[in-house]
Parts: sequence; C-alpha cells; structure tokens
Amino acid sequence: MGLKEIVEGIGQTDGEFVEKARERTSQLVMPTRALGRLHDISEQLCGIYKTLEPSINSKAILVMAGDHGVVNEGVSAYPQVITGEMVRTFLKNGAGINVLARLVNADVWVVDMGIISDLDPASLEKGERLLIRKVAKGTANLAKGPAMTRQEAEKAILTGFQLSTDLFQRGVEILGTGDMGIGNTTPSAAIGTVLTGRSLEDMVGRGTGVDDKGLLRKRETIRRAIEVNRPDRGDGLDVLSKVGGFEIGGIAGCILAGAYHSRPVVIDGFISTAGALVADAICPEVVDYVFAGHRSEEPGHKIMLDYLGLNPILDLGMRLGEGTGGALAMGIMEGAVRIFQDMLTFEEAGVSDKES
Amino acid sequence: MGLKEIVEGIGQTDGEFVEKARERTSQLVMPTRALGRLHDISEQLCGIYKTLEPSINSKAILVMAGDHGVVNEGVSAYPQVITGEMVRTFLKNGAGINVLARLVNADVWVVDMGIISDLDPASLEKGERLLIRKVAKGTANLAKGPAMTRQEAEKAILTGFQLSTDLFQRGVEILGTGDMGIGNTTPSAAIGTVLTGRSLEDMVGRGTGVDDKGLLRKRETIRRAIEVNRPDRGDGLDVLSKVGGFEIGGIAGCILAGAYHSRPVVIDGFISTAGALVADAICPEVVDYVFAGHRSEEPGHKIMLDYLGLNPILDLGMRLGEGTGGALAMGIMEGAVRIFQDMLTFEEAGVSDKES
Repeated sequence: MGLKEIVEGIGQTDGEFVEKARERTSQLVMPTRALGRLHDISEQLCGIYKTLEPSINSKAILVMAGDHGVVNEGVSAYPQVITGEMVRTFLKNGAGINVLARLVNADVWVVDMGIISDLDPASLEKGERLLIRKVAKGTANLAKGPAMTRQEAEKAILTGFQLSTDLFQRGVEILGTGDMGIGNTTPSAAIGTVLTGRSLEDMVGRGTGVDDKGLLRKRETIRRAIEVNRPDRGDGLDVLSKVGGFEIGGIAGCILAGAYHSRPVVIDGFISTAGALVADAICPEVVDYVFAGHRSEEPGHKIMLDYLGLNPILDLGMRLGEGTGGALAMGIMEGAVRIFQDMLTFEEAGVSDKES
Repeated sequence: MGLKEIVEGIGQTDGEFVEKARERTSQLVMPTRALGRLHDISEQLCGIYKTLEPSINSKAILVMAGDHGVVNEGVSAYPQVITGEMVRTFLKNGAGINVLARLVNADVWVVDMGIISDLDPASLEKGERLLIRKVAKGTANLAKGPAMTRQEAEKAILTGFQLSTDLFQRGVEILGTGDMGIGNTTPSAAIGTVLTGRSLEDMVGRGTGVDDKGLLRKRETIRRAIEVNRPDRGDGLDVLSKVGGFEIGGIAGCILAGAYHSRPVVIDGFISTAGALVADAICPEVVDYVFAGHRSEEPGHKIMLDYLGLNPILDLGMRLGEGTGGALAMGIMEGAVRIFQDMLTFEEAGVSDKES
C-alpha cells in the first residue's frame, strides 16, 4: 500500500460512541466525572473502537532504532556505538523499556530501522524479538544536506505502517511507540522547529545531557540544517527526508497505521512526538487516535504536544525515550478502561444519586 | 500504645541508604537519572526500608468512612445516606477504589470509623473486608461546637494506627489511605485553613459539586467553625477534635503507623491530605514516609501538598477520594521499584558509558 492510499483510508473517530460512552460514565457510582482524565481516555477509546466495550488487554511496543549522521557535529553526550549496544540490551530484556513493558504486560519488538551495527538474526536467542528493516546504515549528516532521500523517507514510514499492521492483525489492541538512536533529539528538534514554527531556542534542549557548549552547537547545527535543506512545512515527507531519521519515520508509520486500522497508539516523548508531527503533517486526522503517554523533561516536548492538541497522561520528569513513558501510561489507560467497564452504576449499586 | 509513645517511636528515614540507592541508580543503563521521579520514589523507599532491595508487592488500602454533623448546614451536593450506601458498594467490590485496587493488586479494607448506618458484621459475605470501629455515629456539627471530644479524636487516631499496625505485621509493604464520608471536604478544608494558615477563599472548593450558593455557604460554615472553636494550630489533636472527622483521624493514624513501623504510606486526595496535615502537626517526621498519590481537582489540595513539601505522582483531574489516586499511583511506584531492581547496569549490559 502507498502513502496516498493510507491517507485516503483514514477516517474520523466515532463521535456518537464517545457520546454514548459519556452517558454511561455519567451513570457510574460517583460524583459527575470524578475520575477526570480516566473518563476522557476510556471515551476516546470507545470512539476509536466504535464500541462501548473497549479492550486494551493485548499491548505491544515497537522500539524503532536508527543512527544519525549528524552526530559528527558533536550534538550528543554519548558515542554512536551505543545505539547498537542498546538494541542488544533491549533483546536481553535489560533496559528501562523492558522493565516497564513487563509491568504493564506489553510485548516489546525492537526494529532496526537503520542502525550502523549489524545484528545477525541467526544469532538471536529464543524469544528475542528483533525485526531488521534497515532503510540504510544511518542517515546522512542533515547539517550538510538531506538526512535521507524522499524514497527512503517513504520507505521508513511504510515500514512502520506495515509492522504495526501486522501487530494489529495478530490481535494487538494498543500500540506504543519507542525509539533508540544516539543523536536523535537533533532531528526531532529540527522537525519540531519546522512543523510548529517555534524558535530554535524554544525547541532545542540538552537531549541525553550535552553541556552548555554542546547545546549551542546543537542549535547552530539545526539552524544550518534548516537553512541548507529548506524543508517544506506543508509536506511531511519532505520534512522527514531533509531533517528526520529512519526511526522517526517508522514511528510516523505506526501512528498512521493506528488511525488507518482504528487502533489507539500511545506515543512516548520527544522523538515519538516528532514522529507524530510528521504523521500529522501527512494526515491531520491521526491525532484523534493518539495518546500522549507523558510529558518529557526535554523542553520542546510540551510545545510539540500543545501544537498537536495532546494532553500528556503522566508528567514524571522522565527523558529516557525507548517508549518508557508510553508503557507506564498504558497502565493508567488500563485503569481507565476498567473503571468504564467494571464500576457499578448508581442503580446497580443501589446508591442514591445527587439531590436535585 | 498512646500517642506520646508513638511520636517518640518515630525516627528519620535513612539518608545513607538513600545515598547508596542514588549511587546504584547512577550505574543503570541510561542517561543520568533519565527516569526522573521514578528514581526519587525508589530511593525514598530505600531510605524508609533501610535496604537496597525495596519491595512493595504486598499492597493494602484502608478506606476510612465517617459521617459529619456539618451536613446539616447544606455543605454537600449529596445526601448523608450515601456514606453507608457507598460502604456497602465497597464491600460489593463495585466502587472506583475496588476497580483500581484490583488493577494494582491491592487489598481493600473498609473501616467504619463512625458512620450513621449500622452494618451488621454477621451479614457479611465471605471475602467482604469490613472493620467496625465506630468512634460515634457521626461527628457533631462543627459550625456550632467541637466536631468531637479530644478523647474521641485520640481514639480515631489510635484506631487508624492499630489497624495499620495489624496490616504491616501481616506483611503489608505499602499502605494506601482512602476516605468516604458525605460532607468531608468541609472538615478537610477547615483543617487545611487552620494548619496551613491560608485563606478560606484559597482552601474551600466545591467538593463533590456544590453550586455557587453552596460554595459560599460552605466557606461561611467553615469561617464560623473556626471562630466558634478556636482550634490551636500548634496542637494537631485539638484541630482534629474541633473541626475534623473520624475518618480523617483514622487516616492520620495510618500515617503515624507508617512512620512508626518504617513503612511507606500513599495518601490520596484532599481528605487524606487533611489527615496527613493532622499527623504532621503531631509529628513532622511523618512526611518522609508519605507519598502523595495525586493532585486532586479540589483547589486547596495543592496548597496542602505544598505546605507538606509533597510532590504528587499523578495529576489526572481526579476528585473522587476513596483512595483511588493512591491506588493508581501504587502502579507507578511499582514501576519505580522494578526499574531500580531489574534494569541492568552499564557494566552488566556491556554498554559504553558517557564520553568524558
């Protein structure tokens, strides 16, 4: 399927089911909407699934990994070799995302969208979920030209779309997006700057922890990248190809797949939200299928979320990526669904309602 | 045990274990403290338990119920009969707290601290966890005189202390506090006003949903209650007896028990935090054993939390009480503990650390 067909296949969530769900919430044995955001979440899920019996029991997280030519500009506090090392750590179930995914009973799939290391699929142990879908061995340095070709950008998105489609077809009911890629706050901030129209000062933060000098270098690098590449704000694919990354394109594809198949997608932090910005630029309807897992410490993240009209579920000062914020938020969403399904109504409980 | 002995038995949490825990966190395979609040939570638990292997697997929630004479002033949107009806709903496992406690695998115990209805313990079905510890059948109207005697206030606190002690001795590793009592945002706001020293305008909100007229009536009622009773800010027991409630005293007792036995207590919203204010007035060391589950929509709640120096884990626009915010937060705390215990270190994962 091509991108055009995907976009044409995306419709709106069902407002009538949201209304019916709100009606049911109003009958539950508590003061009006006393569990706040939990009701909004369950009702949005009803609208996405067109049901009054939403289920998010079957959970999966796609951790998209990619490398970035821009690390040559000295924009990251960590060496590039870590991308591949962390992918191995994911496969060993030893990283943050593995721990938090286990907590909420979500399966983690790791996708090599274009890292420099080569992992041998034949060497994988039983249960290690690695999908090798290299678009290329890392992007080109976006400070000097496009990060990737337009064809590669499309391929990255379609790859994310296809992998998510496979998961949904296997019965996954909610999908989380995660990322790994040393240097990837730089393309994410570039995408955020271009697509939200905000300043570099607002959008560019320290990522995994560059110092003051590194921060200035990072801003200057992104300023040059935008000047050199002149990405077209009205064309999401152009923005992705010029200042993006393969994992970011993959994440955009996951989000398009959620909307196309009417399934919820929980995004994580700064990088996943850059992916959401790209998906939104391609097809603005996607946002209704997206849940923002948390607000990251990376300062530009709130600007991105506000631009998309997304209200993060958690705000815990996290800035790890990998999908960790989305995983934790899935636990809250599970609570929202159970409240909607399992709480008694005033009538069932035999409790008097509010005095009129 | 008397209140004096309890206070004498409360010490500080162990700063050395917090330091050792921070050292371990710094070795985990991620950028420095990249999971933010999760690290603060796990390290605080290490300090409470004096261990580097904290466990909060065994969870319980005490839902304290009481009635309030002040409802005669028209301060609540709901009729008083609901207190007993909701207690029955808790026993039927059909309320919000039951649903969210199941989600995080916490046992719910309901305590009749002084409701007007009489529930017959002989009529309980198997598995229904009701503890009848009536201090009296509802408090007196605090707008006209003390809500209870000083002896009753002490009895309420000691009851909460003893019930929590029993749970800790049975192996409970983390305790949540919950409340039920029509009218109980009024005594809670009165306690908040007296103990934080802030204005009635700041502290008094709509509770379960009074209208504008009801809100003015509620403020005026509390103003009179403080004028008539002249509670002594320096004496937590005096404040509780004059403008408090039996369930609020019970919650204060839970918090004292957590500190006394070096166990963490997760408070919920406005009413539980009023209980924490009372406990703090009796023994300020308790605060280090307390986790604020969430920030309630009730506007005075943030003032109370700030006064106690507590940073809420969740902020989801909830205002139900019952312990629901604390229950949901226990899931996040479980995540914090698992990150601390299960995530690999850089060394274990064979991942390169930051470039120096």
